[in-house]
Amino acid sequence: MSRPDLTPELLAELRAAVAEQAPLVQCLTNSVVQTITANALLAVGAAPAMVDNVHESATFAGIATGVLVNVGTLDDDRAAAMALAAAAAHAAGTAWVLDPVAVGGLEFRTRVAGELLEHRPDVVRGNASEVMGLAGTGAGGRGVDSTAAVDSAVEAAVALSGRTGGAVAVSGEVDLVVAGDRRARVRGGHPLLTRTTGAGCALGALTAAYAGVADDPFSAAVAAHLHVALAGERAAEGAPRPGSFAIAWIDALDAVDAAAVRSAAPDRLA
Amino acid sequence: MSRPDLTPELLAELRAAVAEQAPLVQCLTNSVVQTITANALLAVGAAPAMVDNVHESATFAGIATGVLVNVGTLDDDRAAAMALAAAAAHAAGTAWVLDPVAVGGLEFRTRVAGELLEHRPDVVRGNASEVMGLAGTGAGGRGVDSTAAVDSAVEAAVALSGRTGGAVAVSGEVDLVVAGDRRARVRGGHPLLTRTTGAGCALGALTAAYAGVADDPFSAAVAAHLHVALAGERAAEGAPRPGSFAIAWIDALDAVDAAAVRSAAPDRLA
Amino acid sequence: MSRPDLTPELLAELRAAVAEQAPLVQCLTNSVVQTITANALLAVGAAPAMVDNVHESATFAGIATGVLVNVGTLDDDRAAAMALAAAAAHAAGTAWVLDPVAVGGLEFRTRVAGELLEHRPDVVRGNASEVMGLAGTGAGGRGVDSTAAVDSAVEAAVALSGRTGGAVAVSGEVDLVVAGDRRARVRGGHPLLTRTTGAGCALGALTAAYAGVADDPFSAAVAAHLHVALAGERAAEGAPRPGSFAIAWIDALDAVDAAAVRSAAPDRLA
Repeated sequence: MSRPDLTPELLAELRAAVAEQAPLVQCLTNSVVQTITANALLAVGAAPAMVDNVHESATFAGIATGVLVNVGTLDDDRAAAMALAAAAAHAAGTAWVLDPVAVGGLEFRTRVAGELLEHRPDVVRGNASEVMGLAGTGAGGRGVDSTAAVDSAVEAAVALSGRTGGAVAVSGEVDLVVAGDRRARVRGGHPLLTRTTGAGCALGALTAAYAGVADDPFSAAVAAHLHVALAGERAAEGAPRPGSFAIAWIDALDAVDAAAVRSAAPDRLA
Repeated sequence: MSRPDLTPELLAELRAAVAEQAPLVQCLTNSVVQTITANALLAVGAAPAMVDNVHESATFAGIATGVLVNVGTLDDDRAAAMALAAAAAHAAGTAWVLDPVAVGGLEFRTRVAGELLEHRPDVVRGNASEVMGLAGTGAGGRGVDSTAAVDSAVEAAVALSGRTGGAVAVSGEVDLVVAGDRRARVRGGHPLLTRTTGAGCALGALTAAYAGVADDPFSAAVAAHLHVALAGERAAEGAPRPGSFAIAWIDALDAVDAAAVRSAAPDRLA
Repeated sequence: MSRPDLTPELLAELRAAVAEQAPLVQCLTNSVVQTITANALLAVGAAPAMVDNVHESATFAGIATGVLVNVGTLDDDRAAAMALAAAAAHAAGTAWVLDPVAVGGLEFRTRVAGELLEHRPDVVRGNASEVMGLAGTGAGGRGVDSTAAVDSAVEAAVALSGRTGGAVAVSGEVDLVVAGDRRARVRGGHPLLTRTTGAGCALGALTAAYAGVADDPFSAAVAAHLHVALAGERAAEGAPRPGSFAIAWIDALDAVDAAAVRSAAPDRLA
């Protein structure tokens, strides 16, 4: 790795900062993944709070260290709560992450996610189909699965980053993170992550945790993706099937500390 | 086994077809079991999509390979989305499965499930109390637990199958599957499946996955029940307590492949 | 232990009664923890039923052995269902438990929980911040985390117990249970319980299970807290990281039987 802006030391410091500062991460996320999302946050040392109703979401976004908005299972009430939280986060300067699950192929959520974009998320995190769907340049994937390769979403990611002023992360075999004219790719991870429901959604929450302690959303997104990838590799060593892999991955999110990040970073980033 | 219609080879082929075709299964299911349902689908090679809001459920039912409707935790919005999805699935010829959780004893869900029946589910899957409750011949069980034996539900299952034109599966110590004048019984499984929240509900989703790749709902239901039973037996070998059993069961759903089905089928079916 | 009112034998008998009577526990609880709550109930031998809609919650509270109301993820509909269930439980003499998650710092849930208190919960269970928030003597914690020590909540617990006529349990490093002029402290447990999402919420449900089989809410609350603490200790022996700990804890809830309670009680209670 020869990136002056993303040194192994910086990424290790961010990992340590999450553990030490225990960022309070408000999650407005889909009902399928709330448990694994909360457990992933607890495993890395963050504090989850699933405050997602219209009465409390804006207030809490002013208290939280970071906010995740994930449109995986929307209804009208939750959509309203998300708009309130995103607006409040933006107004308060709280870092917030938008995860446009399955956006592109379904009108309702595509419209809701498009409106959320107005509140300028610090990070957008999705797969290639979702990022293109949110940018308006793709037709969406197959449910939550991407039907497009990461590379096909570069232009959409750059365009979105231009609109939000923040970072855009595209998950795939090699992850891509874009912010303005900065680019990073994160190698690693394991295919079993795609067979664990909520691993990608939890990555969005971890990105919010990192964004809450980092100076800029670009390095936060890279650090979160690297953390998840390293934990995935470690989990797969002892757990080759999806049920036990999901549990081992939570253990590994805990085990991947600053030293592990420091030593793995040169090999994984480009 | 001496059933010309349900050869071990057919059941093995269906298992392989799920893995190869990765059916996209839309789940409108209760909030308690969404995670294990998604993970069970991923474990067998299917693709889950929990699209259950009124704006998207009908559209998605036209795209999906199979649809599960499970009334475990209903509210008015979700009930409306279920009706839309069931109608759209039926109209599009998408195989759909109705799981009448705790129907019979509680008026609201009994009425909702009765109305869903009008859209002629390809498979109804429940325990004996629920199947009798849905057929209008029983008073319901004790919450989600059946208070009746499988055999007491034969008449109700036959009557329901007559009304829907599809299959009806009754889960219990020995499962019963009925469709028109066809009958099958699936032996096996393990008592720990009844101490794992969502195992039965996930079986409904796996039935939808199988129904999406099979020629007929009867063999789909038998294949799904056999798959779950074999995975339950395998999981219990190494995990005699419920927490680790649930994880081992997901691993075993992955591990039970076409060859395992082929060799076990003669012994398990009647 | 030299408590005539809380003998090891009584606590062991209550543990056995849960396993033998399989109390039907209706849970109106937050969406993050439904799965672990249901699995924890199943592990100890109880029967969970997550009936939380406005159409069914009151009826079911009349059938259930115990009811849990947990305000962790509220919306207007769920709040209405909770009020109906609490009123019906109180009217029917069904033991019910109120878990005031994150009450004190957020207006909406603080108001809802305050109104629920009118229906006189048999047990209130929370951390120190929540108990003080509910009593109106504290400003609430940090999301779901307590920012106060158990000892600081003694006065609030006594005041709440005076208002409800029931027991109040304050979870922390050493748990405190108060009812009228009775006091008990439960030592033990493990810090990993605070890194497992839903462990505290599941404790609320287990308290409802115990309250359903016990003669008085005070001994029910003590027995439930002791059961959870012992299971936490046992789980941590073989699972030092949070993912596998959560699974081992469910196994241990199953494994901690009457004999284990009888032998551990003298050392853990004060």
